[in-house]
Amino acid sequence: MSTDLQAPPAPTTRETELVAALLAPKGFGDQTLRNPLPGAIELLGGIPAAEALPTEEILAATERVLRDGNPKVPSLQYSRTEGLPPLREWIAAREGVSADRILITNGGFHGISLAIQAVVERGELVAVDNPIFPLFLRGLQLSAGRHAPVRVGPEGLDVDDLRRQLEAGLRPVALYTVPDFHNPSQGVLPTAARQELVQLAEQYEFVIFADNPYRELRFAGEAQSVAEFNNSEHVIHINTFTKTLGPGLRLGWVVVPERFKPAFVKLRSRQDSHSSTFVQAVIGELLTHDAALFDRVLAGANAIYGRREAVLAGALRRELGGELAITDPEGGLFLWPRLTDDSIDAERLAADASAEGLEYQRGGFFHSGPGTDADRHLRLAYGNVADEALDEAAVRLARAFARQRG
Amino acid sequence: MSTDLQAPPAPTTRETELVAALLAPKGFGDQTLRNPLPGAIELLGGIPAAEALPTEEILAATERVLRDGNPKVPSLQYSRTEGLPPLREWIAAREGVSADRILITNGGFHGISLAIQAVVERGELVAVDNPIFPLFLRGLQLSAGRHAPVRVGPEGLDVDDLRRQLEAGLRPVALYTVPDFHNPSQGVLPTAARQELVQLAEQYEFVIFADNPYRELRFAGEAQSVAEFNNSEHVIHINTFTKTLGPGLRLGWVVVPERFKPAFVKLRSRQDSHSSTFVQAVIGELLTHDAALFDRVLAGANAIYGRREAVLAGALRRELGGELAITDPEGGLFLWPRLTDDSIDAERLAADASAEGLEYQRGGFFHSGPGTDADRHLRLAYGNVADEALDEAAVRLARAFARQRG
Repeated sequence: MSTDLQAPPAPTTRETELVAALLAPKGFGDQTLRNPLPGAIELLGGIPAAEALPTEEILAATERVLRDGNPKVPSLQYSRTEGLPPLREWIAAREGVSADRILITNGGFHGISLAIQAVVERGELVAVDNPIFPLFLRGLQLSAGRHAPVRVGPEGLDVDDLRRQLEAGLRPVALYTVPDFHNPSQGVLPTAARQELVQLAEQYEFVIFADNPYRELRFAGEAQSVAEFNNSEHVIHINTFTKTLGPGLRLGWVVVPERFKPAFVKLRSRQDSHSSTFVQAVIGELLTHDAALFDRVLAGANAIYGRREAVLAGALRRELGGELAITDPEGGLFLWPRLTDDSIDAERLAADASAEGLEYQRGGFFHSGPGTDADRHLRLAYGNVADEALDEAAVRLARAFARQRG
Repeated sequence: MSTDLQAPPAPTTRETELVAALLAPKGFGDQTLRNPLPGAIELLGGIPAAEALPTEEILAATERVLRDGNPKVPSLQYSRTEGLPPLREWIAAREGVSADRILITNGGFHGISLAIQAVVERGELVAVDNPIFPLFLRGLQLSAGRHAPVRVGPEGLDVDDLRRQLEAGLRPVALYTVPDFHNPSQGVLPTAARQELVQLAEQYEFVIFADNPYRELRFAGEAQSVAEFNNSEHVIHINTFTKTLGPGLRLGWVVVPERFKPAFVKLRSRQDSHSSTFVQAVIGELLTHDAALFDRVLAGANAIYGRREAVLAGALRRELGGELAITDPEGGLFLWPRLTDDSIDAERLAADASAEGLEYQRGGFFHSGPGTDADRHLRLAYGNVADEALDEAAVRLARAFARQRG
């Protein structure tokens, strides 16, 4: 510490170009990750139900890992950047790929972040969902990337819209989409459209970032194939245990084509070396000790989410009749109702709902460009909200409508 | 999948400029993190002793966290980018700063990586230790940064050499050093030199990256102050639980000046959102449940490391007499003996040692520029090696000398 009488000049706060570019879009993330407000019903984030997470089983797996240990890979020591072999092998078997192509991450967003930095040169163009999971655009700032919106319809990405734009000269280096239970609009991209999308990626030489955190949360209908994604040199398929085993683990994975593996490993080794060996060992033990556990966890979780979706949609239909056009999703954690009356002010509705003790994400948060009616939607997250609160949420939303109707 | 007879063209493997710049220097990291070879004695990495880690206590803390829980911050759910309050508060009390200035990371290297991206503009100059922890230079590639070597002497960074270079016109934006138990050379920067260093940073407007993973591992002598670092607007003080509670946790922290906090949080929120809530909750519980635990862990660990250092240094003196100049460190995990005979070929010695079943890091790995005798040193890591193996290591090294002596 200087003891001179003359104090040193106050340091200037200079940000790197990278940091200066990282502007928060509309505070979405802050609202999702903030501390809960007392009293309010919050339908804000894609947060799994606490009771759907295998807490006791994770504890038992921790006991086995720390008591019995694994002399080849001690769980409190360093491990390889790619991830622990037992965990990678379990994931690979499920994805139907070689374990070499599975890289462990600190959750789905981490996979997105690595994909952006590995594939998108500074300032390059990425085609994206419209509406979109808005944190992707925040991640894209890491490469100062530009984005081109592609329409998302009731069945996810509108591949015909993408094809038209490509034929008209659009040349993205990558495309970002959520193929299963789209966030926010909950559609599922059909298998045939996945095939067409991959063909377009091959033809026009772009890389698909297939972000699939909700894929396992299906409570109705039939699963669409992911083989198209996992078998293509043009797809980085991103998934996570966030929605199934718990966001707090920060554990996910990417299925990468061999050609991208060196880039991912190089980048990752310069961030935090590898994901927690401890968490990887515990979750690897959890999944391999009882081969039926994961599907049992999913069955339990999806029973909860299917019921909560039905409770919320039913209460909204009861309380709000024709005010909302509701499509029941086949999975995921969100309802995406549309305001039927164009004279309703959506911003005012959200403010009135907040005053009534109901918080949700306004659809306007989710557009990535013009040409979407996202701002006429509400994104209602039901995953971590009890049935009674979901019913009460509809009552409060009805009161918010009544305020505006006068 | 395309079913056309004509296959699509093979995709070109194009790397972003960022990834292309990430060249591995001499395979240092790969050697440290590789799978162990059977039979060989490995004195390779700064790896803590398994028996020094509080494994049973971590398990007990996990039980308390998962069984009793904390309704405000459930350990399997999302949490804030900055980290969990109980953990930040415990660290802050130890560092003597406000908890607001503690940001949780995934280990020490993650703190380095964030500091580089927050402070170093692309292509800018960073003054660095010479010899240096070489993975810092790898991390610096994230900002395509250049580096200027500063001499490291028996008491860590040579502040006089830095001052001379600054007076001669050197204008770095940052300086990287390991103040406590320097890696690789084990010196400790005296408190007076820390004060001078901070004054230089204030005068010449650069930011000190004080990387301090070994600070707690003192087994002899008196601790030097870190208050100079924690009280300056010009220091990012980086630490980790890697060497004390286990590298596999991937849990560390930075003490940042307020002015850098927004940059760190913005960057981090675009990587993996936050460190594992689960790991933070477990370690927070571990440290706060029994206020004496951490110091007890350190006492146990340092008894081990002090003994191992004495065993290794003693065996080397016994087996190799005048071949090595040995300075016993007061802490840390490395011995850094110098070859006394300039006619010994250090590269051949390492190869012969490998043939005799002994692996260590050649000192030549650690130079960051000319003007160091690092290539006449051996870095011998004793942290995770049993006493008998350390003794045998000296025997094998003596055999390697004998091969060269003919």
